[in-house]
Amino acid sequence: MRKKIRVVQFGVGPIGASIVRLMRQKHSLEIVGAVDKDPAKAGRDLGEVVRAKDAPWGVTVSAAAASVLAKPVDVVVHTTSSYLPNVMDELLECLSAGCCVVSTCEELAYPFRKHPELSAKLDAAAKEEGVALVGTGVNPGFVMDKLVLVLSAAAQRVDFAKATRIVDASKRRLQLQKKIGAGMTPEEFRAQVAAGVIKHHGLPESIAMVADGLGFALDEITETIEPVIATETVKTEFLEVAPGQVAGVYQIGRGIWEGEDKIFMELQMYVGAKHPADTVELRGEPNLTLTIPGGTHGDIATAAVAVNAIQAILAATAGLRTVRDLPLGILAPNATP
Amino acid sequence: MRKKIRVVQFGVGPIGASIVRLMRQKHSLEIVGAVDKDPAKAGRDLGEVVRAKDAPWGVTVSAAAASVLAKPVDVVVHTTSSYLPNVMDELLECLSAGCCVVSTCEELAYPFRKHPELSAKLDAAAKEEGVALVGTGVNPGFVMDKLVLVLSAAAQRVDFAKATRIVDASKRRLQLQKKIGAGMTPEEFRAQVAAGVIKHHGLPESIAMVADGLGFALDEITETIEPVIATETVKTEFLEVAPGQVAGVYQIGRGIWEGEDKIFMELQMYVGAKHPADTVELRGEPNLTLTIPGGTHGDIATAAVAVNAIQAILAATAGLRTVRDLPLGILAPNATP
Repeated sequence: MRKKIRVVQFGVGPIGASIVRLMRQKHSLEIVGAVDKDPAKAGRDLGEVVRAKDAPWGVTVSAAAASVLAKPVDVVVHTTSSYLPNVMDELLECLSAGCCVVSTCEELAYPFRKHPELSAKLDAAAKEEGVALVGTGVNPGFVMDKLVLVLSAAAQRVDFAKATRIVDASKRRLQLQKKIGAGMTPEEFRAQVAAGVIKHHGLPESIAMVADGLGFALDEITETIEPVIATETVKTEFLEVAPGQVAGVYQIGRGIWEGEDKIFMELQMYVGAKHPADTVELRGEPNLTLTIPGGTHGDIATAAVAVNAIQAILAATAGLRTVRDLPLGILAPNATP
Repeated sequence: MRKKIRVVQFGVGPIGASIVRLMRQKHSLEIVGAVDKDPAKAGRDLGEVVRAKDAPWGVTVSAAAASVLAKPVDVVVHTTSSYLPNVMDELLECLSAGCCVVSTCEELAYPFRKHPELSAKLDAAAKEEGVALVGTGVNPGFVMDKLVLVLSAAAQRVDFAKATRIVDASKRRLQLQKKIGAGMTPEEFRAQVAAGVIKHHGLPESIAMVADGLGFALDEITETIEPVIATETVKTEFLEVAPGQVAGVYQIGRGIWEGEDKIFMELQMYVGAKHPADTVELRGEPNLTLTIPGGTHGDIATAAVAVNAIQAILAATAGLRTVRDLPLGILAPNATP
């Protein structure tokens, strides 16, 4: 029997907890530690923190990464923030401990355009230790970038790429329903957008990845965030949205070259969305469309994509990698490294 | 400006010609030679053989590979046969000349189960020269294997995988319409199946790749080929099929474990197919479906997938690779290696 991959979970919020529960099911993985600064979690058993039925696991959540990373660790799964500048110290600490990293930090998915200096720093640090890191999840990391590039392999020429993700937020957790502004007035929504509170992160990263993958030069990448206004009452497990109130977000990202859209990405995430789906369209030779009817579930799929990337990041060339370079697939429950 | 990738086309049949025309459009590639034993092609200008508008190209088709491979060549695109034993000498000659190889030989797409010794021989030969080779195309190589594995990255657990490819052969070339038995009586069809003439190659290879990628143990892989019988008259550009005659093939591949289907692949390729599409279904946590409505066009997409793999095979670790390991994407017209 091969040795198990020793993993540490860095950040035990909702996504981190979902990842931990999934990792526990993968026989090829051994969870050897967890890090979370939250005093409500630090010092407690990880299995209990993530509400696992088979808790306690005998793995304690630590407030500080140093002690956890001092032990032999192969991969850190990192889920603490969407902003790369916020997590630089955490990532560098993992890398300098000789660990590969899979992070759900959206800005890490393709950071070269927005954060060229931080990208270079991470790449150098990873290469120095002979390890690799990648930012991934369902979006960015899968539906709006990896799927676009995979589909493009069947095209002789691509002139324009579009990705649309429509999510019915009714079935998602309260935290997400609030995050998209469900139940707010349009004015409250706009104030929250202006304050940077309401925003899905990752569209510019997906656009930059797709542009490089398709060989598109772009003059600029733009983003807009508008509210979806409810036209009828929508009730979810947690809240109720009246007609005229905000049901969620309608976010558009554009990759523009010489005044023309070369890449168009559209995220509709609202309670009561009627036809949830992930769709990729390529115009060129030939035109190609790919659809996942119903769409990929954000939390389930993000946990899946992150955990399934563990094997690929261990096998990857040292440095800062992206899902553009990595082959994707599942880490089977019975797989060995 | 970066140096162009120097490519040789080995085999200038319909798929080879389609690949050559596509490679001509990619500014990152330079076609430096071509090989075909057919006396109707050898000695002629490649551009003229593939009926390019800008012919002649000043590249002559050679009957023998040796002289072509004696020059500096980076990658050979190989399209001569579906059977691995038939092409071993050709592949070994390319590898020993220090060339990477992208081949549309269906049995090369995932040869480890059917041809373990030949696989080992190719892997060793490639490693000795520090080059890589891969078998790919649209099927095997894309819709029934790569797409299945890519989609599985969004799944926490997969219990069963299904791929369905429905092709309307009405719009395909005469050679293909004949190859699927269109216009035959059911008896003629069965005789041609028994003689090994009517058969799409690649289902067992896709099944083996998916099984390994999903971590499924399989007891056996089975295949059946049945005729699709026309229920109404179907006219194509080339032929007419009367009710009761064969419209095409209905081929099923199964990956079976302990008497149960773990993988089910279904290829319907017939004239008059009403709802052409490529569809992947995964059952597990969660269930996931992915569809390409209309499906990928066999010839266009096979040429695309093969040409688009050129960059990936050059960047790959030496040895026998498969699309399971390689990241897929497009070789942009303006891309540089």
